[in-house]
Amino acid sequence: MAKTKTTKSKSKLRVISLGGLEEVGKNITVLEYENDIIIIDCGIGFPDDEMPGVDSVIPDTTYLEKNVDKIRGIFVTHGHEDHIGALPYILRNIHVPVYATRLTLGILRNKLSEHVYEVTPELIECKAGDKVKAGVFQLEFIHVNHSIADSCCFAIRTPVGTVVHTGDFKIDLTPIDGSVIDLPRLGQIGNDGVLLLLCESTNAERPGYSPSEKNVGASLEDIFFRNKDKRIIIATFASNVHRVQQIIDTSAKYNRKVAITGRSMLNVVSAAIELGYMSVPEGVLIDLDEIKKYNPEQLTLITTGSQGEPMSALSRMAFSEHDKVALGAQDLVVISASPIPGNEKLVGNVINELCKKRVTVIHSGVADVHVSGHACQEEIKMIHALLRPKFLMPIHGEERHLSAHKALAESMGMSPDHIFISEIGRVLEVDKNSAKFNGTVPAGRILIDGYGVGDVGNIVLRDRRHLAQDGLIVVVATIDTTERTIISGPDIVSRGFVYVREAEELMEEVRAIAYDAIEECFASNQIDWNHIKSAVKDDLTKYLYSKTKRKPMILPVIMNI
Amino acid sequence: MAKTKTTKSKSKLRVISLGGLEEVGKNITVLEYENDIIIIDCGIGFPDDEMPGVDSVIPDTTYLEKNVDKIRGIFVTHGHEDHIGALPYILRNIHVPVYATRLTLGILRNKLSEHVYEVTPELIECKAGDKVKAGVFQLEFIHVNHSIADSCCFAIRTPVGTVVHTGDFKIDLTPIDGSVIDLPRLGQIGNDGVLLLLCESTNAERPGYSPSEKNVGASLEDIFFRNKDKRIIIATFASNVHRVQQIIDTSAKYNRKVAITGRSMLNVVSAAIELGYMSVPEGVLIDLDEIKKYNPEQLTLITTGSQGEPMSALSRMAFSEHDKVALGAQDLVVISASPIPGNEKLVGNVINELCKKRVTVIHSGVADVHVSGHACQEEIKMIHALLRPKFLMPIHGEERHLSAHKALAESMGMSPDHIFISEIGRVLEVDKNSAKFNGTVPAGRILIDGYGVGDVGNIVLRDRRHLAQDGLIVVVATIDTTERTIISGPDIVSRGFVYVREAEELMEEVRAIAYDAIEECFASNQIDWNHIKSAVKDDLTKYLYSKTKRKPMILPVIMNI
Repeated sequence: MAKTKTTKSKSKLRVISLGGLEEVGKNITVLEYENDIIIIDCGIGFPDDEMPGVDSVIPDTTYLEKNVDKIRGIFVTHGHEDHIGALPYILRNIHVPVYATRLTLGILRNKLSEHVYEVTPELIECKAGDKVKAGVFQLEFIHVNHSIADSCCFAIRTPVGTVVHTGDFKIDLTPIDGSVIDLPRLGQIGNDGVLLLLCESTNAERPGYSPSEKNVGASLEDIFFRNKDKRIIIATFASNVHRVQQIIDTSAKYNRKVAITGRSMLNVVSAAIELGYMSVPEGVLIDLDEIKKYNPEQLTLITTGSQGEPMSALSRMAFSEHDKVALGAQDLVVISASPIPGNEKLVGNVINELCKKRVTVIHSGVADVHVSGHACQEEIKMIHALLRPKFLMPIHGEERHLSAHKALAESMGMSPDHIFISEIGRVLEVDKNSAKFNGTVPAGRILIDGYGVGDVGNIVLRDRRHLAQDGLIVVVATIDTTERTIISGPDIVSRGFVYVREAEELMEEVRAIAYDAIEECFASNQIDWNHIKSAVKDDLTKYLYSKTKRKPMILPVIMNI
Repeated sequence: MAKTKTTKSKSKLRVISLGGLEEVGKNITVLEYENDIIIIDCGIGFPDDEMPGVDSVIPDTTYLEKNVDKIRGIFVTHGHEDHIGALPYILRNIHVPVYATRLTLGILRNKLSEHVYEVTPELIECKAGDKVKAGVFQLEFIHVNHSIADSCCFAIRTPVGTVVHTGDFKIDLTPIDGSVIDLPRLGQIGNDGVLLLLCESTNAERPGYSPSEKNVGASLEDIFFRNKDKRIIIATFASNVHRVQQIIDTSAKYNRKVAITGRSMLNVVSAAIELGYMSVPEGVLIDLDEIKKYNPEQLTLITTGSQGEPMSALSRMAFSEHDKVALGAQDLVVISASPIPGNEKLVGNVINELCKKRVTVIHSGVADVHVSGHACQEEIKMIHALLRPKFLMPIHGEERHLSAHKALAESMGMSPDHIFISEIGRVLEVDKNSAKFNGTVPAGRILIDGYGVGDVGNIVLRDRRHLAQDGLIVVVATIDTTERTIISGPDIVSRGFVYVREAEELMEEVRAIAYDAIEECFASNQIDWNHIKSAVKDDLTKYLYSKTKRKPMILPVIMNI
């Protein structure tokens, strides 16, 4: 990202996303007005194929750390990783209160417990309807529907007008907990006037409405009814409390005991029961160790692994690596989720293994066992219709989703010059009557690899990709530059290039070329190390490409005595 | 694969797939009866994430090379890579005639021209209706519909009965060339009695019928009608001659000139015109250099890159790297294809870049601009109804597809014990009244990387994956084992692990630990090289994991003087 400075116009609201634009995940939005800053969400992103070995990605928050004295609070819309996952990192340096609803804080507390803090983070529980003052800002928590309970959007009063940030949402008119997104309140806020809408765009390409979570319940009912002779194993997202509730309810109705497997599923279910977000009929839940006591058709297992994650409980069952559950022809597996883009192959691998075991598999490609938690086109339009914002900045999505959102707004009559497709770090300045981009602040991505935060960057990734493509050849030689002789070597070590035992001739040739390259340097009086290294590298690269059409990394190590 | 020998029962037909089972691609089926063998198709497979750097995958044909004297011919169903792509390799060692239709041979000739052969491959042109004798077998070419012209399936008369191999097919009742799959002939063959059906399973999970190719024409018509003010760029598979024909026809109708870009698109279009599979109205086709002479709305460009391939013409346009086409708000891009599983992200990247340029993008997720070339459930059932085979072996698909195909056959009343889900190398023995598995032959995959055929195997891949995950650290030291001293080093070189300039302290610590490890070996009288190497490796692995939670590859190189 360019790190140009921006001229601050006084008495304008500055709206900056440090993540969540041109990407799915890593959501974080900053509102700034004179000496006050608030932060909405702070999530992680997921590494793609171009980032081998990387565990997760967090936003670059340099700008916030430089303005730490201005920050009045962090407000969190809901408890998904891409909205809370980077909080454990940001809270090391930024010591301000975190405001969120009960379930969100429950999940966050669990995450924070794995880290050590000099200053214990201050977590403040809020509920839909609460209004919180933070500097010049006042934030109102408004209930929305989403694939995790206790999700909110924010109406934010600022000195220049009201900003609405939707977080992730859908409109579910028959939600499991009976609590529909607060459309009346949104309408009221719309009537009072909305200056700027920051609205999620994940499903902006999808026409129509996202079906109700209750539809999944109907499908489950049907599956349970038709499969009374089978053990039923259902994989879903641990955090989808309502989905899990429906599975438990349907199991209870069909007199099945329910056992839970997978660490995150166990964590979330116990937290959700404890916090009152889930209710389990007496005697339904059993320990996984107890399943032996029951016949297959008396059991439902709820498991993690709906994304095909290699170490998850479902994967371990599929590949016969689960110590307590062995699957076979008496089992029915329901994958109650859609593969997140990029996970299709992993999910496919699990389905294939299950089929090999003659397990019956039902997935979202063949039955309605999943609904999205994100608003489709008609729902997004509904929110626009309720709020009638003066300005729109689509958030949460790749460029294609932001563009589709813009097209939707235009189809409703919004003027194109009132719609701002931004990018991370870009500053949108808004006052009562106008909005325009004005400069940028530092923004980017920080990679997490093991314990390392930010020690893997573009050069390291480039090397990893190079090594993955064609492997490497290390050339080691000990030389005496005074005598201009090779004392030992050159020795050749290769990894990931060819199977060396069957390529002895090639390796011998590599050694000879390296030898000649060094001798030639001596002969031509070029005894500078870098020169010798370059000569070895160039000669070998050329030779190997002509022989194999591959370009392994060549690492010459020349030692002098 | 297990390489157990199998007891050959005389007078049984042996059916062996050497590829195309539990995978998509690499299709090859072998029929053997006493001293005669025929081969149907010989395609490549595509490398997955677990095979970094690998260009393509071909079947292990050891079994065929060992029985080369028995082989009577290779029969090819159609000209797609996953059916012909491995022929250039197999024909180096197996010198038998290749039988295929005209377009298929045209594409094959093009491929073979890039290789050098001691024995020039013999290519024999056939057409639907032809019958070819090959040893005890007689093969009949029967016309089918598919996403490439001139596709056939085979009815094979064998001493034990008739085998039908469908190749890839769909039932298109309104195909572009007017030639519907030969359902009457298939019905006739069914009436005469089919012993074994080898039927493709790609879409066996998809309910209903695959829409006709004509549906795409209707969508294109609609797009051209609504976008008379834009330049239209359409990406599709080069080999989909009928799709390209429809684009040309619609362009001509709307008075647009058509320019072609992308090497394979240019190759296929010129070959298809030459062979008579495509007809272009006079004056419609122009050279890409001529597009400057026309207004945007007078132009259609047909391009490769529908799978987001990084070097394809569409990708180059999207990323502003195409030397002749610059895209912008006046352009409409149609991606007339579905992403092949695994390519979703690549295609997404291209769509995002196009959106950034304010190009309008229409893809298969938002409009009916693509239809599959593979039979869906009702079409598969239709083929079963026409042929009424005694035995079924589902082919072409992952386990999930083969299983779904089995379920379809069972739903039509076929007995489960007449259905054989095989695996590559497994031998199905069939006589007039019975079929059963009996042993295996060698089978597997050979990886192609650059010029290398088979020199990259599991060890090389494991190393590449390891290097990609956490990079490597090379430790080099020159020692004198007689004096038990370190003469030079240890030097530390790292790649893909951390950004070294910001990790000097860590690298210094690594050096110290390596030094201590070697000294300790000297002190404890362990001067064996392997021992020293292990000591360095173990100590560093332990240290680095505790510090970084990563496990880079450690490569100690110890030189003795």
